[in-house]
Amino acid sequence: MIIQLAADSGEPIYQQIAGVIKEQVHRGSLKPGDRIPSSRDLAATLGVNRTTVCLAYDELRRSGYIQSHVGRGSSVVGANGQRWLKGGQESEVNWDSLLSTGMLNLTRRIPARDGAAPRAWLDFSRLIPDQTLFPVKPFEGILKGVIRQRGAALLQYGPALGLPELRALIARRMQRWGIQATDEEVIIVNGAQQGMDLVFKALINAGDAVVVESPTYSNILPLLGFYQARVVGVPMTAQGLDLDSLRSVAARRSPKLIYTIPNFQNPTGICTSEAHRRQLLSIASEFNVPILEDGYEEDLRTSGKNVRPIKAADRAGRVIYLGTFSKGLFPGLRIGWIVAHRTLIETLGAAKFSTDYHTSLLLQAALTEFISQGHYDRHLKRLQKVLARRLQLTLRSMKEYFPRGARWTLPAGGYSVWVTLPPGVSGRQLALDARHQGVLIAPGEHFFQSSEDSGSFRLSVSTVSETQIRQGIQLLGKAIAAQAPPQSLRGGVAELPHV
Amino acid sequence: MIIQLAADSGEPIYQQIAGVIKEQVHRGSLKPGDRIPSSRDLAATLGVNRTTVCLAYDELRRSGYIQSHVGRGSSVVGANGQRWLKGGQESEVNWDSLLSTGMLNLTRRIPARDGAAPRAWLDFSRLIPDQTLFPVKPFEGILKGVIRQRGAALLQYGPALGLPELRALIARRMQRWGIQATDEEVIIVNGAQQGMDLVFKALINAGDAVVVESPTYSNILPLLGFYQARVVGVPMTAQGLDLDSLRSVAARRSPKLIYTIPNFQNPTGICTSEAHRRQLLSIASEFNVPILEDGYEEDLRTSGKNVRPIKAADRAGRVIYLGTFSKGLFPGLRIGWIVAHRTLIETLGAAKFSTDYHTSLLLQAALTEFISQGHYDRHLKRLQKVLARRLQLTLRSMKEYFPRGARWTLPAGGYSVWVTLPPGVSGRQLALDARHQGVLIAPGEHFFQSSEDSGSFRLSVSTVSETQIRQGIQLLGKAIAAQAPPQSLRGGVAELPHV
Repeated sequence: MIIQLAADSGEPIYQQIAGVIKEQVHRGSLKPGDRIPSSRDLAATLGVNRTTVCLAYDELRRSGYIQSHVGRGSSVVGANGQRWLKGGQESEVNWDSLLSTGMLNLTRRIPARDGAAPRAWLDFSRLIPDQTLFPVKPFEGILKGVIRQRGAALLQYGPALGLPELRALIARRMQRWGIQATDEEVIIVNGAQQGMDLVFKALINAGDAVVVESPTYSNILPLLGFYQARVVGVPMTAQGLDLDSLRSVAARRSPKLIYTIPNFQNPTGICTSEAHRRQLLSIASEFNVPILEDGYEEDLRTSGKNVRPIKAADRAGRVIYLGTFSKGLFPGLRIGWIVAHRTLIETLGAAKFSTDYHTSLLLQAALTEFISQGHYDRHLKRLQKVLARRLQLTLRSMKEYFPRGARWTLPAGGYSVWVTLPPGVSGRQLALDARHQGVLIAPGEHFFQSSEDSGSFRLSVSTVSETQIRQGIQLLGKAIAAQAPPQSLRGGVAELPHV
Repeated sequence: MIIQLAADSGEPIYQQIAGVIKEQVHRGSLKPGDRIPSSRDLAATLGVNRTTVCLAYDELRRSGYIQSHVGRGSSVVGANGQRWLKGGQESEVNWDSLLSTGMLNLTRRIPARDGAAPRAWLDFSRLIPDQTLFPVKPFEGILKGVIRQRGAALLQYGPALGLPELRALIARRMQRWGIQATDEEVIIVNGAQQGMDLVFKALINAGDAVVVESPTYSNILPLLGFYQARVVGVPMTAQGLDLDSLRSVAARRSPKLIYTIPNFQNPTGICTSEAHRRQLLSIASEFNVPILEDGYEEDLRTSGKNVRPIKAADRAGRVIYLGTFSKGLFPGLRIGWIVAHRTLIETLGAAKFSTDYHTSLLLQAALTEFISQGHYDRHLKRLQKVLARRLQLTLRSMKEYFPRGARWTLPAGGYSVWVTLPPGVSGRQLALDARHQGVLIAPGEHFFQSSEDSGSFRLSVSTVSETQIRQGIQLLGKAIAAQAPPQSLRGGVAELPHV
């Protein structure tokens, strides 16, 4: 057996040895049953440490090329060492055994249902906009005009960072929120979700600590799992992320990123004050941690005064702002954006280029025109009115129908209300019970890293009519009461104040 | 100084120690100038190994919290240890210092130009379809009909795996190539590039060996860099991937994946024979390696008989087939697909769901209708005719104008011709010289992992008119001759045979 070792190949010696032996098995110069030298002899021949040869033999045994017997040495296994060939017939590839570590960490759960539920359900479970309100007609007209005028160019490859006119439009619109951004500080992505994926690609190494609110947006958790981040949940209070806990976590865990949703937080609906935002930014500055600010429902305020995003106070380029058209307009466009420091935007552009080149130009152009002509703002006004009525009715109905001991948030906008159940009532069980009555809710466990049952749930008012709200809340109230131990229902109906 | 260690926190002890000290600095209980215990004393107090304390102090020194002086021990650094605050004024975040290892490995080069070059250029450099041939008119009509009939539903969230009718249509169309796939074995992605990203997400761990053809598709290399794969280039011969080298690499490096482009390979234009494909699959089976088969120009044959994809012979679910509408139709749609074993498709669906939820439903629906009504096949016929004329003219012109010593491939379809320059001529220099004459080519170095200058270049005939071809090839011929040392021009014009 001739083995030539290449000292400068960068490949460990034991792998080189194992590789050569595998090759000889496959070439047929080593045949089933052939003896191979003892590790002592081969080590002496090659002038390497015996341990190295043992490592090579271990690898060969593990992958089924050789077998060893005490006192008889090692020999080549039958059938060319090809365990995956069963009786000459190739068996199916076992894909589950080939998955990457990241993929194994990604909770592989795709919801069975996509899009809206049939109208017969009372669906309080999902944060999807109400498609019966979609301004389809004006979008149809604009799409037609855009493709007629610039069709060929818009169906060609395009810039990774996005259509220049949409980047410029978004930079201008960010000024409404006090964010001063140039066009070069904007990248267009396939919805906020891809924004997160690109940001994590750019910043997260396996083992990095990432702070999230607890509870938080459920679909960020599997993605952080994929990147093998150590997710550190910081509790939400009625005022937002608990800042004392955050400070302590920032000091002890040196997080790589803080993910926060200051407006109409998912799932609690809580909106933080300007003071809270300033303190959060100041803690992030003190510990030199970037902030990923998710402004997914920035446009959905229904009462009270606008609070400026954290990004508006950011002078150091520390805040990465995520925006989307999926909650206030059409999720199906798959268009969102990131505003961040120009250096980071360029890096994200390179990540986007190698990930999927760019977002559809045709849809970007149509959206630009749609917004420029004022259709988006008109739609928002209408949506905010409908949403305000639904939120108020939901809160009134809960007061009327929910048993004592239940508490909830009072959101000033957005789609989510967070309900804390009376002691002893399980969110998971309630979701099951309610489902039997045709009412869908999102149990609290979806929004915690632990996925443990919690005495809470999220109510989304995004797709329910006013009749459905009254009906659904009444049914939920009964289901809660049925589950609650009698003593837990004492005490007044408590409402968590909103900011 | 009180330090409580949590044995079961999962966090290394030295990090816990460093964390507590950082926290005390930030809280102000340790002030600038304060002495901290010697590593020996602290180790004794805590009952831990002194090395552990030294590690903690190293970390604190590195991050600027403490300084040490021989004989005087260690003390807390001024200004709360916050090096990133300069004179109370927060300086800009240094984003380049925060990038992930994967991102650092991704060559960050976005081409300056997107889309087609101005017509004044003779652009042989890019594999982008000719937008003057785009069937925009019928697509416009179909898009209008689709949005009118199903607008709201198509602008809503949708299924991660793709629009069911498009998955079914693609499964049916794959039968033309002898691929038997069910709808469940198809996922819709944002072009073949996202297909690669999702496949790598699902399968590649840092350090995994991935086989690519050498030369290969240039934009797969930065992506493999991101996933920290060890890229192993196997040389291309005139018959395709060198199978002896592949066998040897498969045996010695245990690759996780083999990436191959059997039809109109990018950049060589080489199409492999059915026998070659069968052998490739057999080697992959023998070593139990999955194949990623890129069928990006499957639809662009201009002469000779179709050769079935490797996937058509795959009985074990070993081959992952990538398809796209970016070369034969509209790149701007950003729609491609993967056909693979159902288990892998489900996994890819979970990856897609957490990456960007799904691909635009509106564009998927319009594309389905466009293909179903026969527009795509009609367009392909027209495109194939134009392409055949361009390829033939290119080959005739090269024969006429290129100096002796140059060799090239004779593709039976697709957009690429690969030219090997006479000895001593640099592809890089030629690309620069040609640019001065208004001719753009892609120098060979773009397609090799090493990025070293090579005596070769890729000619793409996708967007050049017949007049431009004659003109461009003539200019290129002169530029080659001007660079070639006289002795290299001896010998006949050699054409690499195509299969």
